[in-house]
Amino acid sequence: MDARSILLIIFDGLGDRPIAELGHKTPLEVAPKPALDWFAANGVNGLLDPIAPGVRPGSDTSHLALFGYDPLKVYTGRGPFEAAGVGIEVGPGDVAFRCNFVTVDGDLNVVDRRAGRIREGTEELAKALDGMKLGRVKVLFRAGTEHRAALVFRGKGLSPQVSDTDPHEHAVKALDSKPLVPKAKATAKALNAFTKEAHKRLKDHPVNAERTARGEMPANLVLARGAGIFPDIEPVTKRYGLKAAGIAGVALIKGMYRAVGIEVLEVPGATGGLDTNMVAKADAALAALRTHDLVVVNVKAADLCGHDGNASGKITVVERIDQMMAAIKANLPQEAVVALTSDHSTPVAIKDHSGDPVPVTIFGEGVRVDDVMAYDERSAAKGGLGRIRGQDLMPILLSLANRGEKYGA
Amino acid sequence: MDARSILLIIFDGLGDRPIAELGHKTPLEVAPKPALDWFAANGVNGLLDPIAPGVRPGSDTSHLALFGYDPLKVYTGRGPFEAAGVGIEVGPGDVAFRCNFVTVDGDLNVVDRRAGRIREGTEELAKALDGMKLGRVKVLFRAGTEHRAALVFRGKGLSPQVSDTDPHEHAVKALDSKPLVPKAKATAKALNAFTKEAHKRLKDHPVNAERTARGEMPANLVLARGAGIFPDIEPVTKRYGLKAAGIAGVALIKGMYRAVGIEVLEVPGATGGLDTNMVAKADAALAALRTHDLVVVNVKAADLCGHDGNASGKITVVERIDQMMAAIKANLPQEAVVALTSDHSTPVAIKDHSGDPVPVTIFGEGVRVDDVMAYDERSAAKGGLGRIRGQDLMPILLSLANRGEKYGA
Repeated sequence: MDARSILLIIFDGLGDRPIAELGHKTPLEVAPKPALDWFAANGVNGLLDPIAPGVRPGSDTSHLALFGYDPLKVYTGRGPFEAAGVGIEVGPGDVAFRCNFVTVDGDLNVVDRRAGRIREGTEELAKALDGMKLGRVKVLFRAGTEHRAALVFRGKGLSPQVSDTDPHEHAVKALDSKPLVPKAKATAKALNAFTKEAHKRLKDHPVNAERTARGEMPANLVLARGAGIFPDIEPVTKRYGLKAAGIAGVALIKGMYRAVGIEVLEVPGATGGLDTNMVAKADAALAALRTHDLVVVNVKAADLCGHDGNASGKITVVERIDQMMAAIKANLPQEAVVALTSDHSTPVAIKDHSGDPVPVTIFGEGVRVDDVMAYDERSAAKGGLGRIRGQDLMPILLSLANRGEKYGA
Repeated sequence: MDARSILLIIFDGLGDRPIAELGHKTPLEVAPKPALDWFAANGVNGLLDPIAPGVRPGSDTSHLALFGYDPLKVYTGRGPFEAAGVGIEVGPGDVAFRCNFVTVDGDLNVVDRRAGRIREGTEELAKALDGMKLGRVKVLFRAGTEHRAALVFRGKGLSPQVSDTDPHEHAVKALDSKPLVPKAKATAKALNAFTKEAHKRLKDHPVNAERTARGEMPANLVLARGAGIFPDIEPVTKRYGLKAAGIAGVALIKGMYRAVGIEVLEVPGATGGLDTNMVAKADAALAALRTHDLVVVNVKAADLCGHDGNASGKITVVERIDQMMAAIKANLPQEAVVALTSDHSTPVAIKDHSGDPVPVTIFGEGVRVDDVMAYDERSAAKGGLGRIRGQDLMPILLSLANRGEKYGA
């Protein structure tokens, strides 16, 4: 049998709980969504626990599981994946930190943890720090959105077991990093040297001179937190023999893609916000299916509405997702296997990720089509897939795509 | 409660995917099968992933799981189980090889890897090799079907980490086995000594003299491949306190039985082919239920049709399986617990094992009978068992048979 291509679409945070004002239905249950329902009616459906029943997943752990990895084995904290997300080519053994540009006084007391909510000029500031050498440690540094940034230490024998330099409050001096285990001594020393050198390079930087001249707070220091070592993840290219591409608006998800060897495709208009151009994402995904074995799309918008407690916004997002699915339905290559699911529920009533399972639909040649007629939480519960886990999805898709390896003889 | 007997029937490769020419139904969904459906209607049903969702099982790993073992812990390759299948009483620490009788010239260059497709006389040739002593290594050797054979080394400190002597191609000299790790040195040496001694004993053997006289190629050497060490498996007699018997036509499955302490019953007419006498198997199973706690039956025919891509053949096999189940239904002892399942799907469209789950029906006193009325893939998905794994089956059957051990107090 010929191997088929796989299209995995992850509706971030789409699952929900019944909402009283919606007649005790979920946003998926009330929104009109003919294209999503078409896939459900012509596919096999079920409920998926991204990690395990009741476990509240992060987007990072959940994406690892949906890509077929055991997060308990390969997840080492958010830092390394965010660093990958802002474009640092992180590798095994690198230690990554999440950072803020901050404003400090002459004694390094924190005046503002977001450097006056700086938005412009952070890329130039980052360039002043990127490539710094601290003894045998090489520094990689990139700006993220607004005041956020990522710091990576590269070198031999580094350890993530060091304390933060970010005091997590104002009017307190930037902290010295301490080794939490003896072998982390060199890493803590390098981090403290970084703090000193960063202040030196930033305090009189032209971007900050202009900010001060405009009466804005200077971004004259970088504080680090959440050290994590980059895990040794076998990429999907090797693990499954898949040439893979991924589309996402937000940096963390791009980082998840890069971490497992999924090439990141930049799609103009795919912002990761509510204004994201979903049909552009659909078109890019369909184009990528011609040249890749696996294409992953993350659509963030539903999660944002969940976090905001915005039920009507979430309904509108479902309608927009449905337009995206109509575009995919219209131009889907015949041999593709399609999976529609979420990385977690973000119920409007909770305003955060919950442990509720999410619907999953698999569509494609050979699927045991069931009786389910709608793509929503309660319809999916009656489907032919039963209740599966995030880590089960990739083996199921590989088997349907005639790409699975036989275990035994 | 009195302990009950358990009848586990494994329809090898019976699960399938919807087939366009069958109106998008599976062979199980279109074949008339009143007896199978009777068991489904009067039992509890579900889907079973032999190993895990989406994982394509081998028959060997899957049977281990259905017997309640974790293949990841006890599966060490096909060789040891095939050796057990041809009747060698393999034990922990034994190293087993899959072998071919081959034809070589005077310099041990391979002329034919199947010794002219030899069919007769291999048992006499095997006897000439069985019992050979190579230093402190004892040789056990049995002929299999046609040119195939099994070789077992018994002794202290043997290792399976040795390279093959089979070059896997013609016109090449038989290979010297090399140790792949230092501690495998003695095993490689023994294997090379075996090659030499086997040629010496076979080249002028009367069977070969007759073959040469008839113008046929002599089976004048044995080449080995796929070394595997026999795992230390706790037999079902000890693990579950079950006196168990198994019926199968094919050697590998007989080997799986022997490996876990299930006595192999030879049933005249149970060939493992499409011509197998299924009703004879049913009668033998019913007779064995009077004297054993667990009786396992493997019916290979559906798998053969799957591998051949033969949909109508698979439908015919379902009808014949149904006759077998009618015979079992007619004479089943009242206290028996019956399970009907498969070791994997072998879809006609795939011509190989797939990762699709298989139907499972459990019938017997005390079972929570559900609404399912037919024994097939999609009906089973709506059953009261939900979606379980291969390793779950034996504990469920033991519990229903009042044989399960309590975990805790």
